[in-house]
Amino acid sequence: MKILKTYPADDGFYMPAEFSEHYGCIMIFPHRRDSWQYGAYAARKAFCEVIETISLSEKVIVCARYDDYDSARFMLSDRVKIIEMESDDSWARDVAPTFVTNGNTIRGIDWGFNAWGGLVDGLYFPWDKDNKMARKLCDVLDVDTYNFRDFILEGGSIHTDGEGTLITTEACLLSKGRNPDMSKEEIEDMLKRTLGVKKIIWLKSGIYNDETNEHIDNICAFTSPSNVVLAWTEDQNDPQYKMSKSCLDILENSTDAKGRKITVHKLPLPKPVMITKEECEGLDDMNGEPTRTPNERLAASYVNFYISNGHILCPQFGDENDKKAVEILQNLFPTRKVKGIYARDILIGGGNIHCITQQIPKF
Amino acid sequence: MKILKTYPADDGFYMPAEFSEHYGCIMIFPHRRDSWQYGAYAARKAFCEVIETISLSEKVIVCARYDDYDSARFMLSDRVKIIEMESDDSWARDVAPTFVTNGNTIRGIDWGFNAWGGLVDGLYFPWDKDNKMARKLCDVLDVDTYNFRDFILEGGSIHTDGEGTLITTEACLLSKGRNPDMSKEEIEDMLKRTLGVKKIIWLKSGIYNDETNEHIDNICAFTSPSNVVLAWTEDQNDPQYKMSKSCLDILENSTDAKGRKITVHKLPLPKPVMITKEECEGLDDMNGEPTRTPNERLAASYVNFYISNGHILCPQFGDENDKKAVEILQNLFPTRKVKGIYARDILIGGGNIHCITQQIPKF
Repeated sequence: MKILKTYPADDGFYMPAEFSEHYGCIMIFPHRRDSWQYGAYAARKAFCEVIETISLSEKVIVCARYDDYDSARFMLSDRVKIIEMESDDSWARDVAPTFVTNGNTIRGIDWGFNAWGGLVDGLYFPWDKDNKMARKLCDVLDVDTYNFRDFILEGGSIHTDGEGTLITTEACLLSKGRNPDMSKEEIEDMLKRTLGVKKIIWLKSGIYNDETNEHIDNICAFTSPSNVVLAWTEDQNDPQYKMSKSCLDILENSTDAKGRKITVHKLPLPKPVMITKEECEGLDDMNGEPTRTPNERLAASYVNFYISNGHILCPQFGDENDKKAVEILQNLFPTRKVKGIYARDILIGGGNIHCITQQIPKF
Repeated sequence: MKILKTYPADDGFYMPAEFSEHYGCIMIFPHRRDSWQYGAYAARKAFCEVIETISLSEKVIVCARYDDYDSARFMLSDRVKIIEMESDDSWARDVAPTFVTNGNTIRGIDWGFNAWGGLVDGLYFPWDKDNKMARKLCDVLDVDTYNFRDFILEGGSIHTDGEGTLITTEACLLSKGRNPDMSKEEIEDMLKRTLGVKKIIWLKSGIYNDETNEHIDNICAFTSPSNVVLAWTEDQNDPQYKMSKSCLDILENSTDAKGRKITVHKLPLPKPVMITKEECEGLDDMNGEPTRTPNERLAASYVNFYISNGHILCPQFGDENDKKAVEILQNLFPTRKVKGIYARDILIGGGNIHCITQQIPKF
């Protein structure tokens, strides 16, 4: 494995869309006791359902800590590859490499990771194990890696159409806890040179109370070039309404890198999902403070789905809109089977199915 | 990866000879402070020379603990693949899988490992990290694994010619610390069913003071079918003389699985190599006792070489026989280049080049 210090775009590499064909998917076996209630047993079960579903149509590589390897091997089918790797938590989207391709080989970008805000508003400390994973994953895959550890970025904060367009949120990428010394223009330039994109569409915000500083992957996602889904509520009293409406206005007034208008498909949100007292009591404290408090609103959204070669894995919350979300996505992804997965036990950790996955493009 | 409970021979698998073509080689980055003097820095250097030489003609996969990954990546070239894996020590020969082939695919045998004797005369406690490596290495390689953790065996205690013959030592395989409830015949039967061999040649002993209970790989090795090298001294006052002579007598009166007589090529031993006071002072204690004592004789032998696709990696000790050993091996391996590697810093840990390597057959 070579550690490269050039820019992917200069080398002819770009980030393909998630709906392009995959070699596989990286995930992490959950373990963190202040993220996953009651020792992570319920989370493990939900993760395993995601892993097994993805593994039906692409290779899944699961990173398990030394202490978790045996349990992971016991729970997972022999289709799944498990590798030993330490981690601070289990968000593969944000700590695994972002892969770029030149149409032939792939390479992995190793961004800096600081737990979504470092010492400003990061969610845990330390985060060194997470930050070291991307390079090691490239080593496992025998692919070269770009060293961009000086630039803080999480995979969940970007989506591309594979044809030159990237969507992201200002709330996240311009946050004080990431790259405070870079201007918006400098960040744009960095995204273009690393991900091989030509145009960046900046939404202002993401999902209400999303502790990642409002990652794009919880509010809006490409379903095909020039088509996106947007998390939506009709309830004007919900603080989410203004946030989603602002995204809608920007998207409807944007064109993509190829000059096409963006078509926005509204994906209804579930009713607000609150964490219960019992769930909170199953979480370790964080430095002597409660990690979550009862009735805290969780950032539930159907947009946080994963696109595998064969399926769309869509979070379900036991809400009346569960079925509707599946139907909308099924119409938008006619060649894939949409599978709803009950994901409250992933949501409690602070993200959802997309956040715990990272696709590896075909190579 | 499937975990199999059948017997390899019943499935049509057998252990190929080390001189057959390899896919690659597994090694472990050294770290243990009661094995490797002065924080393992000298050992790292020697290991890296072995790794880089092997990597010239086959893939080398190096297991590094979480704490060592960065150092290993810094020291090793980009030809080498490094994977995170916990270990108790660094003897890949004894803790990595023994690979078997059916001529098409390979599988890995996961033997039980108990640090060369468990609670009877094992060399450290605990040994659980080592014991868990073989299965995880099969997972990394995407090959199925045979679960034989109930049977204690180290890769260094067996050599095969790939044509049905296995050599081993009674001192090791019949030791009280391994499989004390099995008779010699039951152990023979196990070796035949797991390694696909038809005939086992039992030598009595190995190298004097070899703390593995005298592994075969330090005293005798196949160089081609029906040809072996045997560690030899002409000094009849050396306790090694009787041990080597006994091996010679057995080998010269044996035929292999195909009925051929064995030709023995004597490989001279270096003069006795003793550990110095300064070296001992660089080793951590073991449970409050000195791990080694000054002037303790180390089990130095040129037989502990590794056969890569392109090279023979032969230990060197700064002895007058260094050159002779290289010459003898060069005659026996005309298609490979013999490279001498100064290996005192590996020897201090208790083994040598063969002990720190485990070949993966071509597949």
